[in-house]
Amino acid sequence: MTEPTSRTELSALGEFGLIERIASRVHLQHTTSLKGIGDDAAVIDPQGLHQVVTTDMLVEGVHFDLGYMPLKHLGYKAVAVNVSDIYAMNATPHQITVSIAISNRFPVEAVDELYEGILLACRSYGVDLVGGDTCSSTSGLVISITAIGAANKEDLVYRNGAGDNDLLVVSGDLGGAYMGLQVLEREKAVFKETGAQPDLVGHDYILERQLKPEARKDIIELLKKLGVKPTSMIDVSDGLASEALHLAHNSGTGVRIYDEKIPIDPSTYQTARDFNLDPTTCALNGGEDYELLFTIAQADYEKIKGNPSVTIIGHMTDKASGSMLVDKQGGLHELKAQGWDAFLKK
Amino acid sequence: MTEPTSRTELSALGEFGLIERIASRVHLQHTTSLKGIGDDAAVIDPQGLHQVVTTDMLVEGVHFDLGYMPLKHLGYKAVAVNVSDIYAMNATPHQITVSIAISNRFPVEAVDELYEGILLACRSYGVDLVGGDTCSSTSGLVISITAIGAANKEDLVYRNGAGDNDLLVVSGDLGGAYMGLQVLEREKAVFKETGAQPDLVGHDYILERQLKPEARKDIIELLKKLGVKPTSMIDVSDGLASEALHLAHNSGTGVRIYDEKIPIDPSTYQTARDFNLDPTTCALNGGEDYELLFTIAQADYEKIKGNPSVTIIGHMTDKASGSMLVDKQGGLHELKAQGWDAFLKK
Repeated sequence: MTEPTSRTELSALGEFGLIERIASRVHLQHTTSLKGIGDDAAVIDPQGLHQVVTTDMLVEGVHFDLGYMPLKHLGYKAVAVNVSDIYAMNATPHQITVSIAISNRFPVEAVDELYEGILLACRSYGVDLVGGDTCSSTSGLVISITAIGAANKEDLVYRNGAGDNDLLVVSGDLGGAYMGLQVLEREKAVFKETGAQPDLVGHDYILERQLKPEARKDIIELLKKLGVKPTSMIDVSDGLASEALHLAHNSGTGVRIYDEKIPIDPSTYQTARDFNLDPTTCALNGGEDYELLFTIAQADYEKIKGNPSVTIIGHMTDKASGSMLVDKQGGLHELKAQGWDAFLKK
Repeated sequence: MTEPTSRTELSALGEFGLIERIASRVHLQHTTSLKGIGDDAAVIDPQGLHQVVTTDMLVEGVHFDLGYMPLKHLGYKAVAVNVSDIYAMNATPHQITVSIAISNRFPVEAVDELYEGILLACRSYGVDLVGGDTCSSTSGLVISITAIGAANKEDLVYRNGAGDNDLLVVSGDLGGAYMGLQVLEREKAVFKETGAQPDLVGHDYILERQLKPEARKDIIELLKKLGVKPTSMIDVSDGLASEALHLAHNSGTGVRIYDEKIPIDPSTYQTARDFNLDPTTCALNGGEDYELLFTIAQADYEKIKGNPSVTIIGHMTDKASGSMLVDKQGGLHELKAQGWDAFLKK
């Protein structure tokens, strides 16, 4: 990150000036993006594919704290969490629209930083920024992004397709983003009290999980390559427990998750211990990992067995068997969603 | 409007509870809406048509004042301003996503009122609410809506297609929404100072223009019926001057608007006079009228001549002739956009 060296007031540019400034940095790359910024609406040619639409809103003081979240990372993350939802449908993101409400306390250079991150993510995920809205805010920064993807109808994966005996699989590892947040919150509190500079040494992995999460484009590509079409899928934004319950509820099944199978990175594990937190609880309820949680037919087991990018953590059951966490001794505990809730957090 | 008679805290429902409450009131009506609320993303079947996407964000204290804007009207207006952008592409809106950031000071009943207006607009304009996001806000209410429409490629109308001699046409009348806002602001100030109840008698038309604007679906249908395809089109959100300049700039032409031709409703005219404002200035720069401004080929003149829904207010010219307002004596005045600017207003 570079500190802005000059300060230009937003009012000096005005809304149209700001839109032009943003538009000048955008280069459309998809043949499906027929018209981007600069008309009443963007135009997309679906080229025979189904369209998939998702939207997420990020609010300063609720979803992010600019005290430790650099604007460039925030822009990147705002795009990543949206395209993650598109991948969770087994679709490919093609376009995004970005709306921001921003107060005059931000200079134009801050908006540049934000869009630098947004456009970096656009390149990473191969999406075009085709529209949006910029307006002033009376207080905090609000970012609302809509992502549009495409897929063949037969490739789409919903939350409701899991069968009673399907295997439950998750990509990557869990709980890291939550532990990264704990470290950032702790150092912020220390800084407030003592003025001491943040001590973030040794926490690179979990900080990156929190500040610059990646949507798992690679997993969608891997599954395609392996010839595996999940029977149901969701991305892990609220926590493993909440997402597994969504799959079970929507599919009309039960679910068993084996505690010892849940993938947790050593640095996540160690930091949780340092904070006197149970690593499994962090993985189940922490959220913001943006991994993909999906079910596959037993017949596909051989295709993914041993692949280092994914872990089989359990299986679906009939509905009557309920949704359970299985501990290391084989004991059953009811699975509960204690994940992040927008209206309880603050 | 009915006053909420009970008060349920948002935290009592939680985010998932609120989403379920909203989803239970939504009934998909389009064959193109394959999947609505309840998965990682909505799914749309384009059925061979091009897709048109637009987004708008409304911020409390910037775009609306809940002191005089009932939540139901706010919901309706938030949808109307978005579908207006879809009509301005000569397309038909099919889907919307709605994201809201709302503080705990609002009860569940307030959210119900807001969505009552949103769903009323969905029925009026024939669109499906297929997704969105709900989150908490640390201060004001923020609404972000994305509208998705569809059209045959050859029917789409952009801002850049006007020819040098095309006629400039506007639907309805202008300046009313701005004058409605002036009346509301005045009565609010009086109420603050003296506690006197608002005197809104006789201002029905302009108040409705401000509080419950309609997108001009009927004009798109009329033009189709008359066999007129505009050469360029835009909706009037920032004011006639700003929009006419957009058409001229994008089309590489000049423009002439005749002062005496600008359609202004008698009640708009009278209220402007009462406020010591020039009615023409209100029409040129007031904004929020959500009428359609478009250009047509001279050859189409006979088809729209005398139609009470539209008014020919001028014509395009070669670029070198500039963008001009022609006064009643034939004098030329440079057309300037002094419309609403998001970063200057507050």
